Amino acid sequence: MSSARPRRLAPEERRRQLVKTGLELLAEHPLDALSTDEVARRAGISRGLLFHYFASKRDYHQAVVRAACTELLDRTAPPPGAGARASLHAMTSGFVDYVREHRQLYLTLVRGASAGDPAVQEVVDETRQELAERVLAFHRHTGHPAPPRLALTARAWTAFAEEAVVSWPTDEPGAREELLDYLESHLLKLIGPAD
Amino acid sequence: MSSARPRRLAPEERRRQLVKTGLELLAEHPLDALSTDEVARRAGISRGLLFHYFASKRDYHQAVVRAACTELLDRTAPPPGAGARASLHAMTSGFVDYVREHRQLYLTLVRGASAGDPAVQEVVDETRQELAERVLAFHRHTGHPAPPRLALTARAWTAFAEEAVVSWPTDEPGAREELLDYLESHLLKLIGPAD
Repeated sequence: MSSARPRRLAPEERRRQLVKTGLELLAEHPLDALSTDEVARRAGISRGLLFHYFASKRDYHQAVVRAACTELLDRTAPPPGAGARASLHAMTSGFVDYVREHRQLYLTLVRGASAGDPAVQEVVDETRQELAERVLAFHRHTGHPAPPRLALTARAWTAFAEEAVVSWPTDEPGAREELLDYLESHLLKLIGPAD
Repeated sequence: MSSARPRRLAPEERRRQLVKTGLELLAEHPLDALSTDEVARRAGISRGLLFHYFASKRDYHQAVVRAACTELLDRTAPPPGAGARASLHAMTSGFVDYVREHRQLYLTLVRGASAGDPAVQEVVDETRQELAERVLAFHRHTGHPAPPRLALTARAWTAFAEEAVVSWPTDEPGAREELLDYLESHLLKLIGPAD
Protein backbone atom coordinates (compact mmCIF):
# COMPACT_ATOMS: atom_id res chain seq x y z
CA MET A 1 0.00 0.00 0.00
CA SER A 2 3.04 2.31 0.01
CA SER A 3 3.04 5.09 -2.54
CA ALA A 4 6.04 6.78 -4.16
CA ARG A 5 5.62 9.95 -2.12
CA PRO A 6 4.64 9.85 1.53
CA ARG A 7 1.34 11.52 2.27
CA ARG A 8 1.77 14.57 4.49
CA LEU A 9 0.58 13.95 8.00
CA ALA A 10 0.66 16.19 11.05
CA PRO A 11 3.39 15.00 13.47
CA GLU A 12 0.96 13.61 16.06
CA GLU A 13 -1.02 11.85 13.36
CA ARG A 14 2.17 10.37 11.91
CA ARG A 15 3.30 9.14 15.33
CA ARG A 16 -0.07 7.50 15.86
CA GLN A 17 0.09 5.87 12.43
CA LEU A 18 3.56 4.47 13.15
CA VAL A 19 2.52 3.15 16.56
CA LYS A 20 -0.56 1.55 15.01
CA THR A 21 1.60 -0.16 12.41
CA GLY A 22 3.85 -1.43 15.21
CA LEU A 23 0.84 -2.87 17.04
CA GLU A 24 -0.21 -4.70 13.88
CA LEU A 25 3.29 -6.15 13.48
CA LEU A 26 3.45 -7.14 17.15
CA ALA A 27 0.43 -9.31 16.53
CA GLU A 28 2.66 -11.35 14.20
CA HIS A 29 6.19 -11.14 15.65
CA PRO A 30 7.85 -10.90 19.04
CA LEU A 31 9.01 -7.46 20.11
CA ASP A 32 12.68 -8.02 19.37
CA ALA A 33 11.77 -8.92 15.77
CA LEU A 34 9.76 -5.70 15.33
CA SER A 35 11.78 -4.07 12.57
CA THR A 36 11.70 -0.33 12.08
CA ASP A 37 12.53 -0.94 8.39
CA GLU A 38 9.34 -2.94 8.02
CA VAL A 39 7.31 -0.34 9.93
CA ALA A 40 8.62 2.46 7.73
CA ARG A 41 7.95 0.41 4.59
CA ARG A 42 4.35 -0.29 5.63
CA ALA A 43 3.81 3.35 6.50
CA GLY A 44 5.26 4.40 3.15
CA ILE A 45 7.98 6.56 4.66
CA SER A 46 11.77 6.28 4.96
CA ARG A 47 13.41 4.77 8.00
CA GLY A 48 15.12 8.13 8.52
CA LEU A 49 11.76 9.86 8.78
CA LEU A 50 10.62 7.31 11.38
CA PHE A 51 13.56 8.40 13.52
CA HIS A 52 12.40 11.96 13.15
CA TYR A 53 9.40 10.95 15.25
CA PHE A 54 11.10 8.54 17.64
CA ALA A 55 14.54 9.11 19.14
CA SER A 56 15.59 5.46 18.82
CA LYS A 57 14.33 1.98 18.11
CA ARG A 58 13.99 1.51 21.86
CA ASP A 59 11.94 4.69 22.11
CA TYR A 60 9.70 3.44 19.31
CA HIS A 61 9.27 0.01 20.93
CA GLN A 62 8.36 1.66 24.20
CA ALA A 63 5.75 3.85 22.47
CA VAL A 64 4.16 0.78 20.85
CA VAL A 65 4.04 -1.17 24.10
CA ARG A 66 2.71 1.87 25.94
CA ALA A 67 -0.10 2.20 23.38
CA ALA A 68 -1.08 -1.44 23.88
CA CYS A 69 -1.00 -1.10 27.66
CA THR A 70 -2.99 2.16 27.57
CA GLU A 71 -5.72 0.46 25.56
CA LEU A 72 -5.82 -2.42 28.04
CA LEU A 73 -6.08 0.00 30.97
CA ASP A 74 -8.75 2.11 29.25
CA ARG A 75 -10.83 -0.95 28.61
CA THR A 76 -10.55 -2.23 32.18
CA ALA A 77 -11.34 1.12 33.84
CA PRO A 78 -14.36 1.29 36.15
CA PRO A 79 -17.29 3.28 34.67
CA PRO A 80 -17.86 6.59 36.51
CA GLY A 81 -19.91 6.08 39.64
CA ALA A 82 -19.91 2.28 39.36
CA GLY A 83 -20.23 0.22 42.54
CA ALA A 84 -17.95 -2.58 43.69
CA ARG A 85 -19.30 -5.43 41.58
CA ALA A 86 -19.77 -3.29 38.47
CA SER A 87 -16.16 -2.07 38.75
CA LEU A 88 -14.94 -5.62 39.12
CA HIS A 89 -17.00 -6.74 36.15
CA ALA A 90 -15.72 -3.84 34.02
CA MET A 91 -12.18 -4.90 34.83
CA THR A 92 -12.58 -8.60 34.14
CA SER A 93 -14.67 -8.14 31.00
CA GLY A 94 -12.35 -5.45 29.60
CA PHE A 95 -9.38 -7.70 30.28
CA VAL A 96 -10.92 -10.83 28.80
CA ASP A 97 -12.20 -9.04 25.70
CA TYR A 98 -8.87 -7.33 25.11
CA VAL A 99 -6.99 -10.62 25.25
CA ARG A 100 -9.57 -12.38 23.07
CA GLU A 101 -9.29 -9.67 20.43
CA HIS A 102 -5.51 -9.26 20.59
CA ARG A 103 -4.35 -12.67 21.69
CA GLN A 104 -1.06 -12.78 19.80
CA LEU A 105 -0.19 -9.21 20.69
CA TYR A 106 -1.00 -9.92 24.31
CA LEU A 107 1.18 -13.03 24.41
CA THR A 108 4.01 -11.06 22.84
CA LEU A 109 3.68 -8.43 25.53
CA VAL A 110 3.25 -10.47 28.67
CA ARG A 111 5.51 -13.32 27.72
CA GLY A 112 8.04 -11.41 25.69
CA ALA A 113 8.35 -7.87 26.87
CA SER A 114 9.79 -8.74 30.22
CA ALA A 115 12.88 -10.41 28.79
CA GLY A 116 14.24 -7.57 26.80
CA ASP A 117 14.51 -3.87 27.17
CA PRO A 118 14.15 -2.57 30.76
CA ALA A 119 12.22 0.49 29.47
CA VAL A 120 9.61 -1.79 27.91
CA GLN A 121 9.59 -4.07 30.93
CA GLU A 122 8.82 -1.03 33.06
CA VAL A 123 5.72 -0.18 31.01
CA VAL A 124 4.41 -3.74 31.27
CA ASP A 125 5.17 -3.80 34.98
CA GLU A 126 3.36 -0.50 35.57
CA THR A 127 0.36 -1.89 33.71
CA ARG A 128 0.24 -4.98 35.94
CA GLN A 129 0.50 -2.68 38.94
CA GLU A 130 -2.42 -0.58 37.65
CA LEU A 131 -4.55 -3.71 37.29
CA ALA A 132 -3.60 -4.70 40.84
CA GLU A 133 -4.65 -1.19 41.98
CA ARG A 134 -8.05 -1.81 40.40
CA VAL A 135 -8.36 -4.96 42.51
CA LEU A 136 -7.52 -2.93 45.62
CA ALA A 137 -10.06 -0.26 44.65
CA PHE A 138 -12.69 -2.99 44.25
CA HIS A 139 -11.83 -4.34 47.68
CA ARG A 140 -12.18 -0.87 49.27
CA HIS A 141 -15.59 -0.59 47.60
CA THR A 142 -16.76 -3.80 49.28
CA GLY A 143 -16.11 -2.33 52.72
CA HIS A 144 -14.71 -5.65 53.94
CA PRO A 145 -11.70 -5.55 56.27
CA ALA A 146 -8.44 -5.99 54.35
CA PRO A 147 -6.91 -9.47 54.69
CA PRO A 148 -3.15 -9.65 55.38
CA ARG A 149 -0.94 -9.07 52.33
CA LEU A 150 -3.85 -7.77 50.28
CA ALA A 151 -1.66 -5.69 47.94
CA LEU A 152 0.53 -8.69 47.21
CA THR A 153 -2.51 -10.90 46.62
CA ALA A 154 -3.94 -8.34 44.19
CA ARG A 155 -0.71 -8.41 42.24
CA ALA A 156 -0.44 -12.22 42.29
CA TRP A 157 -4.07 -12.46 41.17
CA THR A 158 -3.22 -10.49 38.02
CA ALA A 159 -0.66 -13.20 37.21
CA PHE A 160 -3.30 -15.85 37.97
CA ALA A 161 -5.78 -14.06 35.70
CA GLU A 162 -3.27 -13.70 32.85
CA GLU A 163 -2.60 -17.42 32.90
CA ALA A 164 -6.28 -18.33 33.18
CA VAL A 165 -7.35 -16.07 30.32
CA VAL A 166 -4.61 -17.29 28.03
CA SER A 167 -5.30 -20.97 28.83
CA TRP A 168 -9.09 -20.79 28.75
CA PRO A 169 -10.62 -22.78 25.86
CA THR A 170 -11.97 -20.24 23.38
CA ASP A 171 -14.15 -22.47 21.25
CA GLU A 172 -16.74 -23.57 23.79
CA PRO A 173 -20.15 -21.91 23.75
CA GLY A 174 -20.52 -19.55 26.69
CA ALA A 175 -16.74 -19.49 27.19
CA ARG A 176 -16.59 -15.74 27.75
CA GLU A 177 -19.29 -15.67 30.42
CA GLU A 178 -17.92 -18.70 32.23
CA LEU A 179 -14.44 -17.18 32.22
CA LEU A 180 -15.70 -13.88 33.64
CA ASP A 181 -17.56 -15.71 36.36
CA TYR A 182 -14.47 -17.84 37.05
CA LEU A 183 -12.17 -14.84 37.40
CA GLU A 184 -14.55 -12.96 39.66
CA SER A 185 -15.43 -15.88 41.89
CA HIS A 186 -11.79 -16.93 42.30
CA LEU A 187 -10.76 -13.38 43.17
CA LEU A 188 -13.48 -13.33 45.82
CA LYS A 189 -12.19 -16.63 47.20
CA LEU A 190 -8.77 -15.01 47.56
CA ILE A 191 -9.70 -11.60 48.97
CA GLY A 192 -13.29 -11.97 50.13
CA PRO A 193 -14.14 -11.94 53.83
CA ALA A 194 -12.89 -14.98 55.74
CA ASP A 195 -15.57 -17.51 56.60
CA MET B 1 40.91 -20.02 37.31
CA SER B 2 41.69 -21.16 33.76
CA SER B 3 44.96 -22.98 33.23
CA ALA B 4 47.01 -23.14 30.07
CA ARG B 5 45.99 -26.72 29.32
CA PRO B 6 42.47 -27.92 29.96
CA ARG B 7 42.22 -30.60 32.58
CA ARG B 8 41.00 -33.88 31.12
CA LEU B 9 37.46 -34.65 32.15
CA ALA B 10 35.20 -37.53 31.19
CA PRO B 11 32.57 -36.31 28.70
CA GLU B 12 29.67 -36.44 31.16
CA GLU B 13 31.72 -34.68 33.80
CA ARG B 14 32.71 -31.99 31.28
CA ARG B 15 29.09 -31.48 30.22
CA ARG B 16 28.07 -31.11 33.85
CA GLN B 17 30.87 -28.62 34.47
CA LEU B 18 29.80 -26.52 31.47
CA VAL B 19 26.16 -26.57 32.52
CA LYS B 20 27.14 -25.57 36.06
CA THR B 21 29.15 -22.65 34.70
CA GLY B 22 26.13 -21.60 32.65
CA LEU B 23 23.93 -21.67 35.75
CA GLU B 24 26.41 -19.42 37.56
CA LEU B 25 26.41 -16.97 34.66
CA LEU B 26 22.60 -17.02 34.42
CA ALA B 27 22.53 -15.76 37.97
CA GLU B 28 24.18 -12.59 36.61
CA HIS B 29 22.90 -12.15 33.05
CA PRO B 30 19.73 -12.82 31.07
CA LEU B 31 19.74 -15.92 28.91
CA ASP B 32 20.32 -14.13 25.62
CA ALA B 33 23.46 -12.58 27.08
CA LEU B 34 24.81 -15.99 28.14
CA SER B 35 27.95 -16.14 26.05
CA THR B 36 29.52 -19.47 25.13
CA ASP B 37 32.87 -17.63 24.85
CA GLU B 38 32.60 -16.63 28.48
CA VAL B 39 31.52 -20.13 29.52
CA ALA B 40 34.46 -21.71 27.70
CA ARG B 41 36.84 -19.15 29.21
CA ARG B 42 35.62 -19.85 32.75
CA ALA B 43 35.85 -23.59 32.16
CA GLY B 44 39.37 -23.17 30.79
CA ILE B 45 38.57 -24.79 27.44
CA SER B 46 38.23 -23.54 23.89
CA ARG B 47 34.90 -22.50 22.45
CA GLY B 48 35.40 -25.20 19.82
CA LEU B 49 35.64 -27.84 22.54
CA LEU B 50 32.39 -26.57 24.09
CA PHE B 51 30.70 -27.30 20.78
CA HIS B 52 32.08 -30.80 20.95
CA TYR B 53 29.74 -31.35 23.90
CA PHE B 54 26.77 -29.29 22.70
CA ALA B 55 25.54 -29.20 19.11
CA SER B 56 24.79 -25.48 19.15
CA LYS B 57 24.44 -22.47 21.40
CA ARG B 58 20.72 -23.15 21.50
CA ASP B 59 21.39 -26.75 22.56
CA TYR B 60 23.68 -25.48 25.31
CA HIS B 61 21.13 -22.92 26.53
CA GLN B 62 18.46 -25.60 26.63
CA ALA B 63 20.74 -27.90 28.68
CA VAL B 64 21.39 -25.11 31.20
CA VAL B 65 17.72 -24.25 31.54
CA ARG B 66 16.83 -27.94 31.81
CA ALA B 67 19.32 -28.35 34.65
CA ALA B 68 17.78 -25.42 36.54
CA CYS B 69 14.26 -26.77 36.02
CA THR B 70 15.27 -30.29 37.03
CA GLU B 71 16.67 -28.98 40.30
CA LEU B 72 13.46 -27.05 40.95
CA LEU B 73 11.35 -30.14 40.26
CA ASP B 74 13.59 -32.38 42.40
CA ARG B 75 13.28 -30.01 45.31
CA THR B 76 9.50 -29.75 45.04
CA ALA B 77 8.88 -33.50 44.70
CA PRO B 78 6.67 -35.17 47.30
CA PRO B 79 8.61 -37.44 49.71
CA PRO B 80 7.80 -41.14 49.15
CA GLY B 81 4.64 -42.12 50.95
CA ALA B 82 3.81 -38.58 52.03
CA GLY B 83 0.17 -37.66 52.60
CA ALA B 84 -1.70 -34.72 51.09
CA ARG B 85 -0.55 -31.92 53.36
CA ALA B 86 3.04 -33.18 53.53
CA SER B 87 3.17 -33.32 49.72
CA LEU B 88 1.81 -29.80 49.49
CA HIS B 89 4.30 -28.57 52.06
CA ALA B 90 7.18 -30.27 50.23
CA MET B 91 6.16 -28.48 47.06
CA THR B 92 5.73 -25.02 48.54
CA SER B 93 8.85 -25.19 50.72
CA GLY B 94 11.00 -26.59 47.89
CA PHE B 95 9.73 -23.85 45.60
CA VAL B 96 10.22 -21.02 48.08
CA ASP B 97 13.69 -22.19 49.11
CA TYR B 98 14.79 -22.63 45.51
CA VAL B 99 13.72 -19.10 44.61
CA ARG B 100 15.27 -17.64 47.78
CA GLU B 101 18.58 -19.32 47.00
CA HIS B 102 18.60 -18.63 43.27
CA ARG B 103 16.58 -15.46 42.99
CA GLN B 104 18.38 -13.88 40.05
CA LEU B 105 18.57 -17.17 38.14
CA TYR B 106 14.89 -17.75 38.76
CA LEU B 107 13.92 -14.29 37.53
CA THR B 108 16.01 -14.82 34.43
CA LEU B 109 14.20 -18.08 33.77
CA VAL B 110 10.61 -17.18 34.45
CA ARG B 111 10.71 -13.64 33.14
CA GLY B 112 13.24 -14.10 30.41
CA ALA B 113 13.16 -17.56 29.02
CA SER B 114 9.72 -17.31 27.57
CA ALA B 115 10.61 -14.50 25.21
CA GLY B 116 13.36 -16.14 23.33
CA ASP B 117 14.08 -19.55 22.01
CA PRO B 118 11.05 -21.86 21.64
CA ALA B 119 13.14 -24.85 22.77
CA VAL B 120 13.94 -23.10 26.04
CA GLN B 121 10.39 -21.85 26.39
CA GLU B 122 9.23 -25.44 26.09
CA VAL B 123 11.41 -26.56 29.02
CA VAL B 124 10.11 -23.75 31.23
CA ASP B 125 6.56 -24.49 30.16
CA GLU B 126 6.92 -28.20 30.93
CA THR B 127 8.26 -27.30 34.36
CA ARG B 128 5.25 -25.11 35.11
CA GLN B 129 3.03 -27.95 33.94
CA GLU B 130 4.84 -30.38 36.27
CA LEU B 131 4.26 -28.04 39.20
CA ALA B 132 0.59 -27.83 38.23
CA GLU B 133 0.49 -31.66 38.16
CA ARG B 134 1.78 -31.66 41.74
CA VAL B 135 -1.14 -29.44 42.71
CA LEU B 136 -3.52 -31.90 41.04
CA ALA B 137 -1.86 -34.83 42.83
CA PHE B 138 -2.31 -32.98 46.13
CA HIS B 139 -5.96 -32.43 45.33
CA ARG B 140 -6.49 -36.13 44.57
CA HIS B 141 -4.86 -36.93 47.92
CA THR B 142 -7.41 -34.80 49.74
CA GLY B 143 -10.26 -36.91 48.38
CA HIS B 144 -12.40 -33.79 47.82
CA PRO B 145 -14.55 -33.65 44.70
CA ALA B 146 -12.78 -31.76 41.91
CA PRO B 147 -14.10 -28.23 41.37
CA PRO B 148 -14.75 -27.16 37.76
CA ARG B 149 -11.64 -26.19 35.79
CA LEU B 150 -9.34 -27.68 38.41
CA ALA B 151 -6.47 -28.29 35.97
CA LEU B 152 -6.61 -24.71 34.77
CA THR B 153 -6.72 -23.41 38.34
CA ALA B 154 -3.69 -25.51 39.24
CA ARG B 155 -1.80 -23.96 36.36
CA ALA B 156 -2.94 -20.41 37.14
CA TRP B 157 -1.99 -20.93 40.79
CA THR B 158 1.60 -21.64 39.74
CA ALA B 159 1.62 -18.17 38.11
CA PHE B 160 0.09 -16.74 41.30
CA ALA B 161 2.75 -18.47 43.40
CA GLU B 162 5.61 -17.29 41.18
CA GLU B 163 4.49 -13.70 41.55
CA ALA B 164 3.90 -14.02 45.30
CA VAL B 165 7.29 -15.62 45.97
CA VAL B 166 9.16 -13.05 43.91
CA SER B 167 7.31 -10.11 45.49
CA TRP B 168 7.39 -11.35 49.08
CA PRO B 169 9.55 -9.18 51.37
CA THR B 170 12.65 -11.21 52.21
CA ASP B 171 14.01 -9.21 55.10
CA GLU B 172 11.23 -9.67 57.64
CA PRO B 173 11.69 -12.18 60.45
CA GLY B 174 9.57 -15.25 59.87
CA ALA B 175 9.16 -14.33 56.18
CA ARG B 176 9.71 -17.89 54.96
CA GLU B 177 7.15 -19.48 57.28
CA GLU B 178 4.55 -16.80 56.63
CA LEU B 179 5.05 -17.17 52.87
CA LEU B 180 4.63 -20.96 53.03
CA ASP B 181 1.48 -20.57 55.04
CA TYR B 182 0.24 -17.91 52.62
CA LEU B 183 0.82 -20.09 49.55
CA GLU B 184 -0.84 -23.13 51.08
CA SER B 185 -3.83 -21.31 52.52
CA HIS B 186 -4.47 -19.41 49.28
CA LEU B 187 -4.27 -22.59 47.25
CA LEU B 188 -6.82 -24.17 49.57
CA LYS B 189 -9.09 -21.15 49.11
CA LEU B 190 -8.91 -21.73 45.36
CA ILE B 191 -9.27 -25.50 45.19
CA GLY B 192 -10.56 -26.52 48.61
CA PRO B 193 -14.10 -27.87 49.01
CA ALA B 194 -16.81 -25.25 48.43
CA ASP B 195 -18.43 -23.94 51.61
